[in-house]
Amino acid sequence: MENFVFNAYTEMYFGKGQIKNLPKILEAYGKKVLMVYGGGSIKKNGIYDTAKELLKDFQIFELGGVEPNPRIETVRKGVEICKNENIDVVLAIGGGSTIDCSKVIAGGAFYDGDSWDIVKDGGLIGEVLPIVTVLTLAATGSEMNGNAVISNMALNEKLGTGSRRFIPKASVCDPEYTYGLPAIQTAAGTADIMSHIFESYFKKEEGAYVQDKFAEGLLKTCIKYCPIALKEPDNYEARANLMWASSMALNGLLGSGKPGAWSCHPIEHELSAFYDITHGVGLAIVTPRWMRYILSEKTVDKFVDFGKNVWGFENNNDKYKLANMAIDALEEFFKSCGIPMTLSEIGIGSEYIEEMAAKAVKNGALEYAYVPLDKEDVKKILTDCL
Amino acid sequence: MENFVFNAYTEMYFGKGQIKNLPKILEAYGKKVLMVYGGGSIKKNGIYDTAKELLKDFQIFELGGVEPNPRIETVRKGVEICKNENIDVVLAIGGGSTIDCSKVIAGGAFYDGDSWDIVKDGGLIGEVLPIVTVLTLAATGSEMNGNAVISNMALNEKLGTGSRRFIPKASVCDPEYTYGLPAIQTAAGTADIMSHIFESYFKKEEGAYVQDKFAEGLLKTCIKYCPIALKEPDNYEARANLMWASSMALNGLLGSGKPGAWSCHPIEHELSAFYDITHGVGLAIVTPRWMRYILSEKTVDKFVDFGKNVWGFENNNDKYKLANMAIDALEEFFKSCGIPMTLSEIGIGSEYIEEMAAKAVKNGALEYAYVPLDKEDVKKILTDCL
Repeated sequence: MENFVFNAYTEMYFGKGQIKNLPKILEAYGKKVLMVYGGGSIKKNGIYDTAKELLKDFQIFELGGVEPNPRIETVRKGVEICKNENIDVVLAIGGGSTIDCSKVIAGGAFYDGDSWDIVKDGGLIGEVLPIVTVLTLAATGSEMNGNAVISNMALNEKLGTGSRRFIPKASVCDPEYTYGLPAIQTAAGTADIMSHIFESYFKKEEGAYVQDKFAEGLLKTCIKYCPIALKEPDNYEARANLMWASSMALNGLLGSGKPGAWSCHPIEHELSAFYDITHGVGLAIVTPRWMRYILSEKTVDKFVDFGKNVWGFENNNDKYKLANMAIDALEEFFKSCGIPMTLSEIGIGSEYIEEMAAKAVKNGALEYAYVPLDKEDVKKILTDCL
Repeated sequence: MENFVFNAYTEMYFGKGQIKNLPKILEAYGKKVLMVYGGGSIKKNGIYDTAKELLKDFQIFELGGVEPNPRIETVRKGVEICKNENIDVVLAIGGGSTIDCSKVIAGGAFYDGDSWDIVKDGGLIGEVLPIVTVLTLAATGSEMNGNAVISNMALNEKLGTGSRRFIPKASVCDPEYTYGLPAIQTAAGTADIMSHIFESYFKKEEGAYVQDKFAEGLLKTCIKYCPIALKEPDNYEARANLMWASSMALNGLLGSGKPGAWSCHPIEHELSAFYDITHGVGLAIVTPRWMRYILSEKTVDKFVDFGKNVWGFENNNDKYKLANMAIDALEEFFKSCGIPMTLSEIGIGSEYIEEMAAKAVKNGALEYAYVPLDKEDVKKILTDCL
């Protein structure tokens, strides 16, 4: 286990009706609130009205219309409001996109230049407005970490940034808010959670047993409860476990003590940047192909663990057979959840594979992945996804 | 999963040499430090000298000699120093006893009456001095939570208290500091960790799957690494996983969403209060007897989970057989770690069983345990421990 510093200080208000705590939570930071949300589903399902009613003693400014892959233009709009209105606290109501967007707005509020700078270079993030979230989708874990991903479609770029100061002060996580999600969002959100787990699970460091057991437990949670949530959208136990898994998957618990770069996210980010697809769908498509591509004498034992401890397969004498069974099971699982499992199914061809592969390796991070990947590797993985 | 609020905001500096961060950590709170420690082992193993050297620019006041079951008299001494010297921050260097003692000192510093009041009634805890810890024993999890247990031998009382404000601001967790522990402390510490896990794992609420998977993962960690640490005291991987497990077992991760009272701790606290025995040893003795006592049609499925998911036993047609195999395996495990597994082995007879049982149920908490226990139940469990 490598050295690490762990801190997950977000106050998590988890469960039915926890939104009632919002006034008390926001009160600590001030009265001028920038409320950020997405395409308007919170107006249909009543969360918008509930929040407005609860916060009637606050001065609310609104920024709606945050995109599924949130764009820098939207960030800029939010920053302008913060600067012009002296906002005290940013309240994100939505999924990871809305929360990510809110984080960069909260940082941009104290940054003198253009907000794209602090996306390109997290080191430029200085003071940050306090961020509070109301979660409506179990997926990114953004409600309990300091990460944010923003797209700049003009540049075909989708970049991750982050700061400890981006960690939300508090998050309201009410599983009932996810009852009304379209099935594909439940499935894609689960694929996103699972991908976060894999990114930490498959690392060179082998002595972080606690973290690996947590990872396996969260994978089992996703595999158990996503099908239930798809069949019975208002099954509270399923929604609660998926929502809690999303926060646990990316708050540092699984990655602490296991350094190294991620593998599938940098590849998928290129797909989203070029084609604006749903992040979780891209991850579901890429992950099994990446797994098959990196399966080797060096990695096979980890895939055997995955097969035994997550899928419950019996040990057998053929390690590769077991590893491939586990990878096949994952692909079948995503398919059974209704996720399109090839790029061609979502209208993506080979036209930009060369360019996407070049961009995916541009910053050099993939050299530090579980299995180092160069441009040719990424091209082959993406081609396998067609 | 029941509603909950989760917050584990301690900054955890985990790994080799992390004590180097101590000046930076303490700096944020002030220059006047009350350094609290136990029986002097930190003077033998060099941690005392390292800390003093690192903190040579601070004004250090010392309180040594904290007992294994820390006593209210020692708390009072610490409070007096805090009040007389206007201490800025309390630095606990030691295991759970030292940290628990430091918490009540930090709370007592702002309390006008006698510190035993805030042990008897956590609601009286107001402002609290910032607490920073350097952990030297993997056991209580006190380094990452707001709990403290203090003994008043004059009254034969050992009581738990707690406050969110008792949660340490930061903890330095260096697994190497546990290399020199006597074997029985490694074993008893592991029994303490496992007991914390059981207290959350065995609860009436059944839908908290994430929490239960985490619990099983931590139990497997203890079962895997305690024997390694006993055989090779300086095995870093073993020490690191045990130490991280201790923090994870009682920082809210396992208990969130699973309300209800604990079972074995209230019983063991009476043993410690009457006989001043090692807490972890008492827990190891009580736990398997409690398990056998509560095994019934209502609880057997949970014990089957314990057998399958923790011990890896194959499913069979006889649930009770599997449940008993799991309980026997636990008792054998403790025995194999060198823990005396009967009260008579540690010189305890039946003389106070009546009185201990009466005290254990006095505050009524055991009515809300996984299986409610009354005085007769506790008497029978303690008798089974003889």
